[in-house]
Parts: sequence; C-alpha cells; structure tokens
Amino acid sequence: MAHSFTVKVYYEDTDAGGVVYYANYLRFMERARTEYLAELGVSVSDLHNQGSLLVVTHVEIDYRRPARLGETLDVTTELEEAKAMRVTLRQQVLKAGALLVDAHLTFACIDTAGKPQRVPAVFGSLQP
Amino acid sequence: MAHSFTVKVYYEDTDAGGVVYYANYLRFMERARTEYLAELGVSVSDLHNQGSLLVVTHVEIDYRRPARLGETLDVTTELEEAKAMRVTLRQQVLKAGALLVDAHLTFACIDTAGKPQRVPAVFGSLQP
Amino acid sequence: MAHSFTVKVYYEDTDAGGVVYYANYLRFMERARTEYLAELGVSVSDLHNQGSLLVVTHVEIDYRRPARLGETLDVTTELEEAKAMRVTLRQQVLKAGALLVDAHLTFACIDTAGKPQRVPAVFGSLQP
Amino acid sequence: MAHSFTVKVYYEDTDAGGVVYYANYLRFMERARTEYLAELGVSVSDLHNQGSLLVVTHVEIDYRRPARLGETLDVTTELEEAKAMRVTLRQQVLKAGALLVDAHLTFACIDTAGKPQRVPAVFGSLQP
Repeated sequence: MAHSFTVKVYYEDTDAGGVVYYANYLRFMERARTEYLAELGVSVSDLHNQGSLLVVTHVEIDYRRPARLGETLDVTTELEEAKAMRVTLRQQVLKAGALLVDAHLTFACIDTAGKPQRVPAVFGSLQP
Repeated sequence: MAHSFTVKVYYEDTDAGGVVYYANYLRFMERARTEYLAELGVSVSDLHNQGSLLVVTHVEIDYRRPARLGETLDVTTELEEAKAMRVTLRQQVLKAGALLVDAHLTFACIDTAGKPQRVPAVFGSLQP
Repeated sequence: MAHSFTVKVYYEDTDAGGVVYYANYLRFMERARTEYLAELGVSVSDLHNQGSLLVVTHVEIDYRRPARLGETLDVTTELEEAKAMRVTLRQQVLKAGALLVDAHLTFACIDTAGKPQRVPAVFGSLQP
Repeated sequence: MAHSFTVKVYYEDTDAGGVVYYANYLRFMERARTEYLAELGVSVSDLHNQGSLLVVTHVEIDYRRPARLGETLDVTTELEEAKAMRVTLRQQVLKAGALLVDAHLTFACIDTAGKPQRVPAVFGSLQP
C-alpha cells in the first residue's frame, strides 16, 4: 500500500489564480517522500550530512484538478522501480480520495562532487 | 499560554548557505497562525471565500540562530495587542526550547476592494 | 528560433544541496514563458483580469546538470504543438550554451469556473 | 542616490488574495541587494564559495500597498548604517514612484562555522 502524508494548503502555496501554484505540488511531494524514506529507514538529512544527495533526474506530472486554500490533501508515495543507480517513485495528490495530481519521479544518488552512487540498499528489497 | 505548531525543515525551506532561507520563516509563521486562528474559530479560508482578507501590515523579526535541514521546529503564536482595526501577534520559532527567530506581526482586515474592516470580534475577548 | 530569457540564481532559488531546488526551475520557466507570450501579444495578466487562466496540465522534465548560486541562465521557450484546446511548449534551461534542464509543458485555457476555453488564437498561426 | 533594481510580478510571487505574498517581498529584496552589492564590488556568490555568509539578523518591514500580477516594481537599496560587525540597509519597493513596502534590514557576516566576521571593508567608505 502506498505511504500517505497529509498537507494543508496555506496562502504561501497558492497563486493569484486562486489555486495551488503548479511548482508547489513538487514541494508537497518532497515533504511526502522525505517521510516515506524516513519510514524505510533512510534519513534525507543524515544522507545530506554524509555528503550524499538524492537528486531528481526526471519528473512526469499530470495536473488534473486544482487544490485550493484551506484544503487538506493526501500525498501518496510508492515505489515504481528500483535499479542499482536509480529509483522511480509514483506520487499522487488526492483530495477526499479524488486524484488531483499524478506524478512519476526518478531519482539518482550523487556525492558532493556530483559523482553517481548506488541508491540506498533498502530499495532493492522493495520491488513492487 | 502560547499556541504551538510543529514544522519540519525540508530541502524546499533551505538555501545554499545550508540553513533555512530568511523569508521562509514567514511561511512557517503563516502556517502556525492559520492554525492558531482556526482554534479561535476564525477560518482564514472561510474569510477568504467571504471576500475578507487578513493582511500583514508590519513585521519586526529577529533572526538569532539558524534552523537546518531535517530539524523539527515549534512555532508559537500569542496575542500581543488587539484593537478594532488591527491585531498584533508575537510569533517565535524554537528548536528544542531554544529561541531561533522572534517576530512581532501586525495585521489588518480588508475587503476585496482593499477597504479596511474591523478585525474578527474574537480578538476583543482575548486581551493578553 | 526559440525565445530566450535570462535568469540569475539567487539564494532564494537554491537549497542546502548547494544547487537550484528542483521545483524552482518551474518558476524560472513561468517567468520565461510569460515574456514569450508577451512578445506574441498575449498578456498573462490581462487574461487574468478578464477571468481567463492558462493552466499547466502536463509537464515532463529532465534534470541533467544543476545550476548554482550566482550563475546566469538562459531559459528558452518555443512552440511544440498548438491545438484548439491546448498548447505544448518546450522550455530549456541553459548555462553558457550547455543544457541543464529540458522540459515539455502542456497548457490549457480555462475560465474562472474552471470551464475549458480555446487557447489564444495567436498559436494557430505559429505552427512549428 | 539609492540603487534601483527592477522586478516583475509573476504568478509564482502572488497568492490567492490576488496580491504578492508577504514573504516574497523579502525575495525581491535579496535579488536587489545582491545586485547592489555587486556594484560595490562584493560578490555574494564569491563570498559563498570562500565560506563567508552575509546573514540577515533583523528586519523591520512596513507593508503599505499591495503589488499585483504583471506589475513592474522598483526595489531600491541604500546604506543606512555601517559598523565593523554589521550593516543596515534600507530597501523599498515602489510602483511608478509610489511606496508599497518599506524595510530596514540588518546583516552580519559569518563563516561556515557560524563565527562572526567583519563585514566587507567597502561599507566603511560608504557612510551615508
């Protein structure tokens, strides 16, 4: 089952169109997958302090319906594919069960010099 | 006692200095005071839908110590002064009880044409 | 030839990884395509004031190399496909001619009630 | 005379209230003072690469009138006070000469360990 994380929409997230600004769903998704990773035992800030960075290399995202000020959203995260050097997650934003935004995000792991590393081992045991 | 709200620091909140970007504490404070207001029975999004806007007119903010990636912060909110046409809140950001950021924020209430309105009545009964 | 727009990277754009935060390239692209549209005679803010919204419905984005603090970037925009109800643009972020980020973004046009509208007529005459 | 920097308001800067989000004026001011500093020969990114950080320690800001989507703003920066360990700048946001936002910002200089350093020497020769 997908990991679920709750986000509430504040003014900071919205734009003059009255809806959540399109780039800000990527911020919601970063929060959600940080907590998803924490539950798998992968601490993004520990990795950071060890000089290891999970970087997004590709995003494909569908915006179906807008979210608005004051709404409570669920952001789900689940593993789509894990390889030695990259991981693909699926993340969705839902409101009361209705799909608003649907994304596939691919990550790689690099060191501070930008050199690719193997992704955290835990993903190997998580094949979907 | 001050209202307390928990915020976690994600990459989105930080900058290349390795700390939370100075403007982003104002985002944390908006989240915290939206929940503070909700507990007082004032829904920012209901006000919004009725064409009423709580706008910040003045901020004074001291940055004492930086927050960093992965840290969990408390944002406290308490009433400092309530008048007919404006309210001043004190909001602080703390980490494990240590004060990081200390702010005083003054608000007014306007309609969609920008005309000043009385602030929500609840503040009158809350004199600190 | 693609429209070109210059962006400079400030602290606000970066994260603790020392690079531009992944969602912020979408902010750069919004700036660039607003100016691209202005050159075609389409004012995003006039549309907004008339109750018409250009909304992003799909993004596919490749992050190839990171941008860093103080760098000057070019954001290019060109038409990829125009249909009655949607337009696809290609937007790229380059540093000194080297491709950093490569995106395809699809837009639709809606009114304030969320009802789809035809996209601005100018795109019909711009077939790539 | 104050240094002047032009900013245009895009959707990313606005919120559902139809105006620029209050924290985002601090982003505009960071852009403006980075260019102000560059004209004084102080490169924020060079300082960064040398492990030196200009950090904001205090902000006092008055929000007088809102800015809206599509507007072109001037952000002015001038020196208010320079001491060995800190500098105070005044930054204002204007629209067609009318004052929208008026701020005083104090900075200190620290190394990567957070230890205070003297501010760049150029400010000593700039007494207002």
